Amino acid sequence: MKLARLGPDGGERPAVVDGGTTYDLSGLTADVDGAFLASGGIAAARRALAVGELPELPGARSLRIGAPIARPSAVICVGMNYAAHAAESGSAPPRAPIVFLKTPNTVAGPNDAVEIPPGSERTDWEVELGVVIGARTLRLGSPADALAHIAGFVVGNDVSERRHQLVDSGGQWSKGKCAPGFNPLGPWLVTPDEVDHADLRLRSWVNGEPRQDSTTADMIFGVEHLVWHLSQYLALEPGDVIMTGTPQGVALSGRFPYLAPGDVVELEIAGLGRQRQEFVKAGER
Amino acid sequence: MKLARLGPDGGERPAVVDGGTTYDLSGLTADVDGAFLASGGIAAARRALAVGELPELPGARSLRIGAPIARPSAVICVGMNYAAHAAESGSAPPRAPIVFLKTPNTVAGPNDAVEIPPGSERTDWEVELGVVIGARTLRLGSPADALAHIAGFVVGNDVSERRHQLVDSGGQWSKGKCAPGFNPLGPWLVTPDEVDHADLRLRSWVNGEPRQDSTTADMIFGVEHLVWHLSQYLALEPGDVIMTGTPQGVALSGRFPYLAPGDVVELEIAGLGRQRQEFVKAGER
Repeated sequence: MKLARLGPDGGERPAVVDGGTTYDLSGLTADVDGAFLASGGIAAARRALAVGELPELPGARSLRIGAPIARPSAVICVGMNYAAHAAESGSAPPRAPIVFLKTPNTVAGPNDAVEIPPGSERTDWEVELGVVIGARTLRLGSPADALAHIAGFVVGNDVSERRHQLVDSGGQWSKGKCAPGFNPLGPWLVTPDEVDHADLRLRSWVNGEPRQDSTTADMIFGVEHLVWHLSQYLALEPGDVIMTGTPQGVALSGRFPYLAPGDVVELEIAGLGRQRQEFVKAGER
Repeated sequence: MKLARLGPDGGERPAVVDGGTTYDLSGLTADVDGAFLASGGIAAARRALAVGELPELPGARSLRIGAPIARPSAVICVGMNYAAHAAESGSAPPRAPIVFLKTPNTVAGPNDAVEIPPGSERTDWEVELGVVIGARTLRLGSPADALAHIAGFVVGNDVSERRHQLVDSGGQWSKGKCAPGFNPLGPWLVTPDEVDHADLRLRSWVNGEPRQDSTTADMIFGVEHLVWHLSQYLALEPGDVIMTGTPQGVALSGRFPYLAPGDVVELEIAGLGRQRQEFVKAGER
């Protein structure tokens, strides 16, 4: 099943996208958020859809697409999780997952314009598989327990300002990861039964030219390992998002220019949909 | 003015502490949270207190003390902000603030027991001045604009697991900063007019023996500079907490043992109150 949130920023309406039709979920829940996911909301939506209880959402095609999950309590990011990206960044592959955080107010719709921070010359893209947590997760016994705690998957862009992340930072990356709009998510939250999350092609383009093209099969630490590992160090909350790392093909490699106002970034993960963001000067969004 | 949240975890009631009396604020707001602070809640509470409109909260002394701010959208931490602590950690003083994040679900009451993570041998304390943001703050023009965006100050303990932070981490600190209960805050949110935040004595003890003893005057980057600096990189939301760094005297220095089950940590900042936490084995809280 594909869940979505459609409408103006801050006024999104919950929806289910099934084939070519969009159904209104607001009779069942006020929002697609942690409380909805933790209380069996996905199963309830599935039942309501199956028995024809969900009304169609009129004019769905003309609505803005919001992030498919309301503001999480945390956005937990994994760094250097593809060997070729670690190499292009000048790093050895990590021996354990590297963890940093984005502030949750970076989350934006998949097609919202993204502001390049004032003075930035090194704004970069990162297509990533995002994992949405469905139930509180602390100290799992094994990676085999992870899937039961996952509500679904999203396309994510872990937008990064490399000078802020690597030069102004004293080595802690969050300073370059938290500008407003720096985490487009969506278009859909796709339940695990719909995709093989361990082998999804993920790609990005800038102004139509290919940049990243890899598969989640190339992750150093897979989805189940990451959820299990993170849960040893912190409690994952329903609705939290784990950004699982990006493959090679970003501007930091030196092979491509950084983003400038007017550039259009597109990102796609097989089965999870496609994003398109225009990058604009700060203040012009 | 001193704001507090009193009652069981998840069921705290908003209150004002004035002299020896505690007043019930729940006629004015459901909680002390970002929405309350952003909508002029502190001024409204001050007026209601002045004209005698707030009822006393009966039995206040017997209630658990919660964190004085409901779960923030972000807890933003500054590292190495006291020169002598940077030195005891083996680092040079930073040229710009070092920024990392704790997940907001680390926030706990000031006297709640803290679980030592399973297997941990390097759990450490850090007394810190916490700044609570009162209004959305993005790209301030100068540090002089910062104070108008600050709702008040809190005592905070930036509890840290040093192996997770420094050894298992690949260098990104958040992995050792986010265990459940790792950010006791309170007892009070104290408005800026009550203290000189630029020169507050801050101290910690373990089992009654002194550990840290410094003043916020020794910060490398002061409160106004930090708020201004952070606002260049991310949007601070009402209710967000900035942990401004810890002075020398932590276990990481090698001068003191790390925490073991049964140890009691106390922390105090002049004018902001005192905390007392028993550290316990995981699962025994």
